[in-house]
Amino acid sequence: MEVLAALNLGEIAQTFSKMGMFPVFDLAYYIVSILYLKYEPGSVEVSRRSPVASWLCAMLYCFGSYILADIMLGHSPVDYFQHNSHILLASAVWYLIFYCPLNLFYKCVAFLPVKLVLVALKEVVRSRKIAAGVHHAHHAYHHGFFIMVIVGYVKGSGVALMANFEQLLRGVWRPDTNEILNMSFPTKASLYGAILFTLQEAHILPVAKSTLILCFTLFMATSKVVMTARHSHGSPFALIESWVCHFLFGSALGGGEEDHHAAPASPLKTKEELSEGARKRKTKKAE
Amino acid sequence: MEVLAALNLGEIAQTFSKMGMFPVFDLAYYIVSILYLKYEPGSVEVSRRSPVASWLCAMLYCFGSYILADIMLGHSPVDYFQHNSHILLASAVWYLIFYCPLNLFYKCVAFLPVKLVLVALKEVVRSRKIAAGVHHAHHAYHHGFFIMVIVGYVKGSGVALMANFEQLLRGVWRPDTNEILNMSFPTKASLYGAILFTLQEAHILPVAKSTLILCFTLFMATSKVVMTARHSHGSPFALIESWVCHFLFGSALGGGEEDHHAAPASPLKTKEELSEGARKRKTKKAE
Amino acid sequence: MEVLAALNLGEIAQTFSKMGMFPVFDLAYYIVSILYLKYEPGSVEVSRRSPVASWLCAMLYCFGSYILADIMLGHSPVDYFQHNSHILLASAVWYLIFYCPLNLFYKCVAFLPVKLVLVALKEVVRSRKIAAGVHHAHHAYHHGFFIMVIVGYVKGSGVALMANFEQLLRGVWRPDTNEILNMSFPTKASLYGAILFTLQEAHILPVAKSTLILCFTLFMATSKVVMTARHSHGSPFALIESWVCHFLFGSALGGGEEDHHAAPASPLKTKEELSEGARKRKTKKAE
Repeated sequence: MEVLAALNLGEIAQTFSKMGMFPVFDLAYYIVSILYLKYEPGSVEVSRRSPVASWLCAMLYCFGSYILADIMLGHSPVDYFQHNSHILLASAVWYLIFYCPLNLFYKCVAFLPVKLVLVALKEVVRSRKIAAGVHHAHHAYHHGFFIMVIVGYVKGSGVALMANFEQLLRGVWRPDTNEILNMSFPTKASLYGAILFTLQEAHILPVAKSTLILCFTLFMATSKVVMTARHSHGSPFALIESWVCHFLFGSALGGGEEDHHAAPASPLKTKEELSEGARKRKTKKAE
Repeated sequence: MEVLAALNLGEIAQTFSKMGMFPVFDLAYYIVSILYLKYEPGSVEVSRRSPVASWLCAMLYCFGSYILADIMLGHSPVDYFQHNSHILLASAVWYLIFYCPLNLFYKCVAFLPVKLVLVALKEVVRSRKIAAGVHHAHHAYHHGFFIMVIVGYVKGSGVALMANFEQLLRGVWRPDTNEILNMSFPTKASLYGAILFTLQEAHILPVAKSTLILCFTLFMATSKVVMTARHSHGSPFALIESWVCHFLFGSALGGGEEDHHAAPASPLKTKEELSEGARKRKTKKAE
Repeated sequence: MEVLAALNLGEIAQTFSKMGMFPVFDLAYYIVSILYLKYEPGSVEVSRRSPVASWLCAMLYCFGSYILADIMLGHSPVDYFQHNSHILLASAVWYLIFYCPLNLFYKCVAFLPVKLVLVALKEVVRSRKIAAGVHHAHHAYHHGFFIMVIVGYVKGSGVALMANFEQLLRGVWRPDTNEILNMSFPTKASLYGAILFTLQEAHILPVAKSTLILCFTLFMATSKVVMTARHSHGSPFALIESWVCHFLFGSALGGGEEDHHAAPASPLKTKEELSEGARKRKTKKAE
């Protein structure tokens, strides 16, 4: 019975890892990403003033992971833009979210039950991207373990890692913080995921890749859905990180996030916390 | 008679599109580009304090389009610097414009009739670059229409698209504006030109490439010569853009330029308007 | 006798130029580089708050030259990270310098006699990198003399040329100065060295490469050891530069450095002078 159960799980994992992302999962990824762009202070104004800049920001939000990974591996940064159907779909989502009459499309996708489903689907894409990034890096550098982690990390984090420059495109400049100095949960999880997938690719972690993809996806989807439902930014890693960092680095990591409660005037708020406040104000304006 | 006229026009277009740009047209491009660099506030001081930084800025102004296009296509950003004669010619122009005794060279090329000829010749080079950029992108990505537009766009716009970072090299940082957020006429025209050349390359626009190059060059040269003669920044696209953007995006585009008259304190002046004021002050100083 | 002396010098130069840099010389390079990182204001705080950001900055300090050279030549910027042993060694140095109990490792390597030896060894690596950079560029572009100088220059200067962005990673933004606008001695020397090695590669300078490497290394090591021992930033080039720049550019170059004494409030202090003051304050704190 256990063997049968294991075979079934293995088959489920295999099927899941071979599932195509386009168009359903990718569509969810674009919708959630451009939703987060709309939450950014000033992005609506930019969409009125300069649609080209707004479109470019939306493309960075949707395809930033591919752009960064291609830069890391020395390929053309706009290589992914050869997939015309993907770009057209993302552009359609951008147009509907920013310019749909009566803001109808935005209201549909921001409706919490719908949003939770989309967030879960987005995490499926993120996990798949991290695995693919590590695999491509392994293909280029068979023993380049640091490179595999870096490429997997940028594939998972996407535009967050170039937030300073994406904001610069919108005329915003906030040099006091960045996603590496103050990691939000998705960025941290992408780093840990990249490390896990690299260990698996190097045959140090004795699991099948499809099983790891399934487990990591389930973890990410569950965490993000719970965090989105609760409007919380508490990281599931906080406890382990505090302990490990205190031991290795003599400090409590996640200080950036916990300090948010202790010192509300701290300039080192994570991007999520700043967006949260702006989002609430914007939601009231939009209604 | 009409057939003969068409054949002649076709031959003229063919001859024109095959004409070599080096050294006459390229020389005009370098002179006008480095003139604009000299108009930038603080550039003369930088040329006294750090000739290396000044030379590097001049090279970005002259070859920024090649650098950006090479970055977009994943090639070496300094690939164009293998053309030693081009670099030497641009360096000679830089030296004469910034360090010629009694500012003689600057006064010659800034003399309006001479400048108008040089501006027209520069637009010949710009148009050729856009066409070449779209062609190279097509060669790398046969169906990458977005990539063709992007590469044609950066070939036409050149250093304007990296203005923030070129200014950073001179110790100036103005994050509130950039050439995508507030497009000047040449940058807009480069975008429209890139779209036209891409449609032609994809056989959607039923014209010969040489004819398109000729027509686009005539349009660009005429517009820029008129705008330079009148010291105006009014874009010929303003009316159509307002209509299209109001229809598509629910706003009047070109608001950035028109607002210059309504709100002189607006931080979103285009680079041209800011340079215009600085140029007038600088011209008085230089004389 | 002279022939024998020349043969011996030639052999010494040959042996010296073939000497492996890893692990002894590279270790010295990593220690001195990360020491300079520790001197930077705020870097210790960053190491407590975000070890990932701190590690990344340390990697930029150690391998910035390879990253920049790979970017210039259109290769993967993280190509050098395939050398796992080098990355692990640099990571170990970073850990010991920032997190060693009682700051023991830092105190050992900052002890002046030890530091002088390490500084000398670092200059051996710098000179070798410039020569290798010029050679690789020559291999890619046989007549690309400007490209050879550029690549040699970035190989020698390393992280200094991307200081603005390395600081941005730590949440610091100082756009008023950069290493090209205000060149410190190592950056200037890297430029002159790159020019010399290019002239040698182009057979214009009639010396053997091994001899040039030996002479340039001796010059760099001696200069840096003397400057470090005296805590001075006076450049040995100052006199010749003033004369040449006054003749060519009508100004006294090195104005940025000399002005430090005339106008202490000048915002254009070199990075070394700013670090010097911070280092003294930090040394007192650390003890």
